[in-house]
Amino acid sequence: MDTPETFLLRAGELLGPRGLSRDPELVQPWLTDWRGRYTGRAIALASPASTEQVAQLVRLCAEFAIPIVPQGGNSGMCGGATPDESGTAILLSLRRMNVIRRLDPATREAVCEAGVILQTLHEAAAAEGLRFPLTLGGKGSATIGGLVSTNAGGTQVLRHGSMRAQVLGLEAVLADGSVFDALTPLKKDNRGFDLKQLLIGSEGTLGIVTAATLRLLPALADRAVLWAGIRSVSDAPRLLAHAERVAGDALEGFEIMPRHSLEAVLAHVPGARNPLQGEHAWNVLIELAADRSRAEGLPALAQELLESAFATGLVEDATIAANEAQAEAFWLLRDEIAPAERALGPAMQHDISVPVAAMADFIEQTAPRVEARFPGSRVVAFGHLGDGNVHYHVLAPAGAVRGEWEGDEGKQISYFVHDLVTEWKGSISAEHGIGQLKRDELGRLGDPVQLHLMRAVKQALDPQGLLNPGKLVPLAPEGASP
Amino acid sequence: MDTPETFLLRAGELLGPRGLSRDPELVQPWLTDWRGRYTGRAIALASPASTEQVAQLVRLCAEFAIPIVPQGGNSGMCGGATPDESGTAILLSLRRMNVIRRLDPATREAVCEAGVILQTLHEAAAAEGLRFPLTLGGKGSATIGGLVSTNAGGTQVLRHGSMRAQVLGLEAVLADGSVFDALTPLKKDNRGFDLKQLLIGSEGTLGIVTAATLRLLPALADRAVLWAGIRSVSDAPRLLAHAERVAGDALEGFEIMPRHSLEAVLAHVPGARNPLQGEHAWNVLIELAADRSRAEGLPALAQELLESAFATGLVEDATIAANEAQAEAFWLLRDEIAPAERALGPAMQHDISVPVAAMADFIEQTAPRVEARFPGSRVVAFGHLGDGNVHYHVLAPAGAVRGEWEGDEGKQISYFVHDLVTEWKGSISAEHGIGQLKRDELGRLGDPVQLHLMRAVKQALDPQGLLNPGKLVPLAPEGASP
Repeated sequence: MDTPETFLLRAGELLGPRGLSRDPELVQPWLTDWRGRYTGRAIALASPASTEQVAQLVRLCAEFAIPIVPQGGNSGMCGGATPDESGTAILLSLRRMNVIRRLDPATREAVCEAGVILQTLHEAAAAEGLRFPLTLGGKGSATIGGLVSTNAGGTQVLRHGSMRAQVLGLEAVLADGSVFDALTPLKKDNRGFDLKQLLIGSEGTLGIVTAATLRLLPALADRAVLWAGIRSVSDAPRLLAHAERVAGDALEGFEIMPRHSLEAVLAHVPGARNPLQGEHAWNVLIELAADRSRAEGLPALAQELLESAFATGLVEDATIAANEAQAEAFWLLRDEIAPAERALGPAMQHDISVPVAAMADFIEQTAPRVEARFPGSRVVAFGHLGDGNVHYHVLAPAGAVRGEWEGDEGKQISYFVHDLVTEWKGSISAEHGIGQLKRDELGRLGDPVQLHLMRAVKQALDPQGLLNPGKLVPLAPEGASP
Repeated sequence: MDTPETFLLRAGELLGPRGLSRDPELVQPWLTDWRGRYTGRAIALASPASTEQVAQLVRLCAEFAIPIVPQGGNSGMCGGATPDESGTAILLSLRRMNVIRRLDPATREAVCEAGVILQTLHEAAAAEGLRFPLTLGGKGSATIGGLVSTNAGGTQVLRHGSMRAQVLGLEAVLADGSVFDALTPLKKDNRGFDLKQLLIGSEGTLGIVTAATLRLLPALADRAVLWAGIRSVSDAPRLLAHAERVAGDALEGFEIMPRHSLEAVLAHVPGARNPLQGEHAWNVLIELAADRSRAEGLPALAQELLESAFATGLVEDATIAANEAQAEAFWLLRDEIAPAERALGPAMQHDISVPVAAMADFIEQTAPRVEARFPGSRVVAFGHLGDGNVHYHVLAPAGAVRGEWEGDEGKQISYFVHDLVTEWKGSISAEHGIGQLKRDELGRLGDPVQLHLMRAVKQALDPQGLLNPGKLVPLAPEGASP
């Protein structure tokens, strides 16, 4: 019996029939990432039911030198949870570990196993008059483990931070099968390196997140959604600063979109309506939100923000959603940009960030450079201006063939955009992570000191290199020590 | 010429006469920590003027295998910036690097060199209508580099988090003399491990912080300070939860003190007055604060909090400071506890934390155990209940001799308190760090998996072991691999 067979036999004994599958019908769906960019192979699909089973499996993998690819909801954007094509790795699904171990309204904390789905946590929090302040498109499939491992973002980062800011405690299985238990939330703890921070966002390359203690907030009592038309994108950061001054902590969202995107959405979504009468070069969606401690003053605050923005000439026109249905309709215009733009033809999408204050200048100054270098292309940037993070789409020239253009001119465009971002001291991955999609780009453009440090930490924590190999950590330059 | 002489010659050439001193009069004052617990020796005092000089010096130290002890304001509580007695290390002061490189009111960011004094940053922020939301007793000498390296706490952690939460960007010199430059603040950046988090709180054992980008907030427009008397410490977390519900984000401080402490302060501070008429087993100081976006509603909010706390029987008596002078007087009662208790006789002080919701129970249940085990001793716990962090003082029995008792029975008391904290899944260092004071206790009580991980990271980032040796990272158990 060869090595993998012995390994699989022992893994099967450990995990039982529900915990280990080689049935292609069960395994296949998880071998392709949801965007369909990557398809890999695996010797089996492991679905442990407990942290202890994960730990035992990892020890077994270490013994047999079997690579491990952890996977949550398989809704990542960068192929970080898809094995390579060698077929040597085991796919480790955390989806069976889906228990909310504790949800305490008094302390506003939830201890969730890695496989808990984001939407499930939202519902459990809401049932207690609370909310979990992070959401994103894939909430119906994204898991807590995946969200922690990729330090996920979403539309509420402006006010509440990314996943890192929600994590009060963490449990993970390390490369040697030991269990890192830091689930107990201590608001203050200065006992050395904050190792939990190292695991957050490490995409399963340093350890496998099995559970997390998360913070909850009081449920929202009210929100006000504003829509404004502005003259140019360079007015957006001024409006943002103004909104921060007037609304303070009540400011929960600040999203921008160019006229092109709004028109695409109006054409794409049946019944969608422009909130304003005239046309504006750029549109801004502003959300103010309040729990019961300040809900009473919210309408007046929204009104004050609107009027003062008018008075100072920051906006050309603006309106406040009259009710919750209208508020939803405003947000729909924002959420439908990506599909609407996709319907127009092929595009290269870039999840980038620069310092918040520089984003408007970045868009204004780089878009002409991209469009000049790649004639017929068109830059459409929209999204989380308040986070310095926009989705920087470059639409293909007319006549480009979907499925061909992306790997050809599209690739050159991405290199160029990443070069520009690096020039502006920004990030080539604001919220989606690195995975396999951007690993080589990170290697090409990352700061050599930081890359060296990353490799040193990886080597120290996973000397066998079995945790999610080929993801995130760029290869060392040839001839260099790791 | 022996090795240190050659090293000193080259260091002198590098740093110039102002940058390197062997004059005992200049060096001596920095060889003892400010509490006077530790005195060490050093081959010289280096005071580089720039990050580049720090980097060159560290490279030189690596070449000659000279240990480096970084130091800021020398106001740490755990001897983390004091060299050992071998005299082999160089003391590296960051105090000459005291430039605020940038303070931008629009983005509310300040880039401070490591040697900038906290008070200086407070003043610079105030001059722009802003504030830096972290303060502590040593603000007149504590430096930004030291605050970052120890992840300092203070009285505003409840609302704003510890130093980690203020750091948007970081610059540090690593063990090989390379410069880790992550100063550019990106609100979203998912390019792999967040290495900056590893350096924060690592007490100079992984790198030497040379600068940080810090977040600023709008200046406070108003505050309301409440003083309440409560029946027992177990009512404190209920009052805290109530205050959070009513005041939301306006809640900025929640400090508790037992009757014993208040009486000690009233006896110790001339002119100090009890804010309430009667006597109460426990007293609570609550601060609400607001920037201009919500200042208007603050007095009403304080009133609502007070009245609802009365109505539900959460407080026996309570009052709101009528003006700023009275607010200051309330805070003085809190700030003077430590000196007032010290004046009563010797005491062992413990900077500990447990989960916020468990702190009242911890005090109620452990104090009798300590007092029973060490007859005549008395537990006095006070401070940041809202952070799950109290100063847990154990006063010596009558007749104990100051200077003798501490190393004898006092030491046994500390072991016992740390055992209790560990039993309750708390931290033996909530905000002061580990340094040399608690390194062996961390080794004794720390989770073996986490200790192993710490050593692995230390080994990976500082293979020569030259960065602040003997601090923070516990020794490996005998016979174990590092």
